Amino acid sequence: MTKYAIGVDFGTESGRAVLVDVADGREVATSVYPYLHGVIDEKLPIPGEEIHLEPDWALQDPQDYVRTFQHTIPNVLKQSKVKPEDVIGIGIDFTACTMLPVKQDGTPLCDLAEFRRQPHAWVKLWKHHAAQPEADKINATARKMDQAWLDRYGGKISSEWFFSKVLQILEEAPEVYAAADRLLEAADWVVWQLTGVETRNSCTAGYKAIWSKREGFPDKAYFKALNPRLENVVDEKMSRDIRPIGDRAGGLTEQAALWTGLKPGTAVAIANVDAHVAVPAASVTETGRMVMIMGTSICHMVLSDAEHVVPGMCGYVEDGIIPGLFGYEAGQSCVGDHFAWFVENCVPASYEGEARKREIDIHQLLEEKAAKLKPGETGLLALDWWNGNRSVLVDVDLTGLLLGATLATRPEEIYRALIEATAYGTRVIVDTFQQNSVPIRELVACGGLPEKNKLLMQIYADVTGREIKVTASTQTPALGSAMFGAVAAGKSAGGYDSIYDAAKTMAHLKAESYKPIPENQKVYEKLFAEYLRLHDYFGRGENNVMKTLKKIKAEVKHVA
Amino acid sequence: MTKYAIGVDFGTESGRAVLVDVADGREVATSVYPYLHGVIDEKLPIPGEEIHLEPDWALQDPQDYVRTFQHTIPNVLKQSKVKPEDVIGIGIDFTACTMLPVKQDGTPLCDLAEFRRQPHAWVKLWKHHAAQPEADKINATARKMDQAWLDRYGGKISSEWFFSKVLQILEEAPEVYAAADRLLEAADWVVWQLTGVETRNSCTAGYKAIWSKREGFPDKAYFKALNPRLENVVDEKMSRDIRPIGDRAGGLTEQAALWTGLKPGTAVAIANVDAHVAVPAASVTETGRMVMIMGTSICHMVLSDAEHVVPGMCGYVEDGIIPGLFGYEAGQSCVGDHFAWFVENCVPASYEGEARKREIDIHQLLEEKAAKLKPGETGLLALDWWNGNRSVLVDVDLTGLLLGATLATRPEEIYRALIEATAYGTRVIVDTFQQNSVPIRELVACGGLPEKNKLLMQIYADVTGREIKVTASTQTPALGSAMFGAVAAGKSAGGYDSIYDAAKTMAHLKAESYKPIPENQKVYEKLFAEYLRLHDYFGRGENNVMKTLKKIKAEVKHVA
Repeated sequence: MTKYAIGVDFGTESGRAVLVDVADGREVATSVYPYLHGVIDEKLPIPGEEIHLEPDWALQDPQDYVRTFQHTIPNVLKQSKVKPEDVIGIGIDFTACTMLPVKQDGTPLCDLAEFRRQPHAWVKLWKHHAAQPEADKINATARKMDQAWLDRYGGKISSEWFFSKVLQILEEAPEVYAAADRLLEAADWVVWQLTGVETRNSCTAGYKAIWSKREGFPDKAYFKALNPRLENVVDEKMSRDIRPIGDRAGGLTEQAALWTGLKPGTAVAIANVDAHVAVPAASVTETGRMVMIMGTSICHMVLSDAEHVVPGMCGYVEDGIIPGLFGYEAGQSCVGDHFAWFVENCVPASYEGEARKREIDIHQLLEEKAAKLKPGETGLLALDWWNGNRSVLVDVDLTGLLLGATLATRPEEIYRALIEATAYGTRVIVDTFQQNSVPIRELVACGGLPEKNKLLMQIYADVTGREIKVTASTQTPALGSAMFGAVAAGKSAGGYDSIYDAAKTMAHLKAESYKPIPENQKVYEKLFAEYLRLHDYFGRGENNVMKTLKKIKAEVKHVA
Repeated sequence: MTKYAIGVDFGTESGRAVLVDVADGREVATSVYPYLHGVIDEKLPIPGEEIHLEPDWALQDPQDYVRTFQHTIPNVLKQSKVKPEDVIGIGIDFTACTMLPVKQDGTPLCDLAEFRRQPHAWVKLWKHHAAQPEADKINATARKMDQAWLDRYGGKISSEWFFSKVLQILEEAPEVYAAADRLLEAADWVVWQLTGVETRNSCTAGYKAIWSKREGFPDKAYFKALNPRLENVVDEKMSRDIRPIGDRAGGLTEQAALWTGLKPGTAVAIANVDAHVAVPAASVTETGRMVMIMGTSICHMVLSDAEHVVPGMCGYVEDGIIPGLFGYEAGQSCVGDHFAWFVENCVPASYEGEARKREIDIHQLLEEKAAKLKPGETGLLALDWWNGNRSVLVDVDLTGLLLGATLATRPEEIYRALIEATAYGTRVIVDTFQQNSVPIRELVACGGLPEKNKLLMQIYADVTGREIKVTASTQTPALGSAMFGAVAAGKSAGGYDSIYDAAKTMAHLKAESYKPIPENQKVYEKLFAEYLRLHDYFGRGENNVMKTLKKIKAEVKHVA
């Protein structure tokens, strides 16, 4: 009897459900729901009203998540003709930190008439960047109070994270903070909507809310120092009952069964995060193999059986990715975005004309031309900091650099140099893990880029000196969520007792992989040494020209 | 009775004659002759034969210079209806070092049947770059033999200069060297063709052939060390009788009168060089005012009444520009070329579309957009080394750098940053002169760029902190040559007794000038400090990454 699980992946612009065969991970049906209100960054979506948002704000409507369930799950059932009773479990993954204030019964504050016009009552999306002053306060206070947990996060908490957003609500809209019985991740909120039970997952708690399995949250004195009213935030509005990834959150309620067309009681997994849930879907449940989710940016995930402070990482969390292991996360903030910027701003009309004539994509044309060049042949070297540096320098104020241009330099040479720069950035991350007792022997890539750019993949293999495998699935987060759904159901219901078992049969890699080419490696070793020297010179304080230029720019704009 | 002089400017692709009113410098008529054989860099122009040239070669046909006289002078006489007897003098200026081997009577070796197929018998154009090994030998030998004259040339002789080319002829085609009774600049050769008298001018001798008024040429022992057959090159094939700029070379021969339609005996000035002859035409005959000839590159000329070693300059020559003064020359090798490269390789189709729609030039569109930005607003900083650095680092192996890019960086911001970088490059030159006892209080610009780009001119004024005046004439070299023609004729014939007197009435500046704007200067002071730090870091040996990349590139290409 074939059994199925459903994974629902909540992205930035849309939600996606994938119905998966539990036996082999085959993806039987997919359905995407583009959110009605998408990313709310200009004004609140209230008809006839003009409530504008400040710069750097990014909100969402929680009802878009409910509509995702209502639209996509019936749709995959219909497409596949799978019977509801054969769907044994559901898992979800979400962007993070995406959080909201709700009442005791889970009602979002923004759904209450009295708070509908108050932006702070809505969901704050991961890329809401208006809480930088609060993040600065969190970091400064932590340094002053010598908080040991700072080390776990590379020495810095981001403005995107949970307490930065909470503190912004408290300081800018104390009435919203007061009215919020619960403050939680949207990931946990949607699981609550499915099961009727409020749970908190170890992944977002660990990576975004300064929680660790051994030490819990920061202590009350620290929160009090941030703001006296924040002293008891954890006990008043959150929870200390943090559930490990892989647990069962509960069963579908009657209400949720009506939304989805599934059976009441269907197992629902503890919530997860898009990048992290992709790891077992990339077949990785053990140490030594780094998963790279490659798209506009790159998330790097690697597992270790021990706790190590690795400088400049986004964080590490016990049970954060795979139960029983420490999950380490690093990141590069500008990869696909980099090439998109280049194509939009720097590619001449003659190249666009050639691509149009040959009916190929401009990226494809550039890749083709760049692939004809050998490593080192461009004479160019770039620092991939067009959007700052996430790992290992953790510095948003760093900027891009291109060196070596001559009057003979062609667009495809710059394009190749930018690809190489992002590969060097990955190499720095790999080397830093390796040097800090988190060994990496192989890379596994998923996401949009590996499908699109073979040249890029080969360069990454050559630069890192490691074989790169590629996932068979192109929707690894949703597949990973379905795998956790099957684990929530358990073996007795036709699923699995652990994510390890699920990964063995449900996760697949492509047969072809990218292997380092020795003669390329030799040249890239020399080039990487030059990259590293510039990386340290401009990135570690010897020459702060990038920050100085930003400061001058800010002053000049301010005078305007 | 109105009197006229004619200036003939021999460029890289064409020759140009301008007929000028001696009283006020008014340009009455102009005629251009595009050389029949232009720049010969692929094969010799011998019908039916395939004699190909090596890379980096660049030759010319001396008969193209004669044809220039034959075409342009009759043409300006015809246009202006000026009578031959009212033309009192001719001056010429040339590219340099552009040189050729000739027989005792002035016949070019390439015009003799036995040498016609031998590339070394033709004119070597200034941009013939195939004599680099010979230049290296000249420099190494000079250092070994501790030759004091090296200091006068910033420590290095260029592959473009006279003895590099002579040594290449000797070593690669000893039969041509042996057959050459005379080796001389094309500038002096065309004056010989007009007057029947061989003369040698102090400008090319000083700037290109290691001659100085006080010390003459390097000694025989040095030439012997380069090659025993070169020991007596000066006495055998050149001359020690070097005539100062401003002298009369002779009068037109009957033959030359037939070519040109002028009267036999018309005064002809000693030859000059295009950049140098522009100085008095830019009204500069005194110390403290630097002339910038701004086009694809920039030549900087300044006068001093004393001899100073200024590091990194192209050279200084007594009587080299204006008799009685030391003429100093510096250069930037990539200015207009820089913007042309940018437009060709880095400007997106959307911008080209906008320019087309608005029927304006793409440079104009970029200038318009860039002019809306304030100093410091781009957040970008560039090193203007796309074609190496001529002054003050004298290093062709340096390459371009762009720093500060973000995902919000727009093409006009990069364009502005490149303009600013060339302005910083000029500032380094101005400061270096100033710090080495050659003061500069004002800049005078001529050439193509000042006419085309007001934004660029304002940035140069802001960055250098000096007022920039612009010449009224757009063909300053030809005007300057005509002025020297009037001086060769002398006051008694209706001309002038000195170039000082000629400059007073014949050279004019525009009424409008570019004055530094104090608030811009303030920002540029900060940015220039950052430029200078990068300039020294990458340019003075602390980080040789640019050279390393070139070396890797060469190795990789070699393996191919």
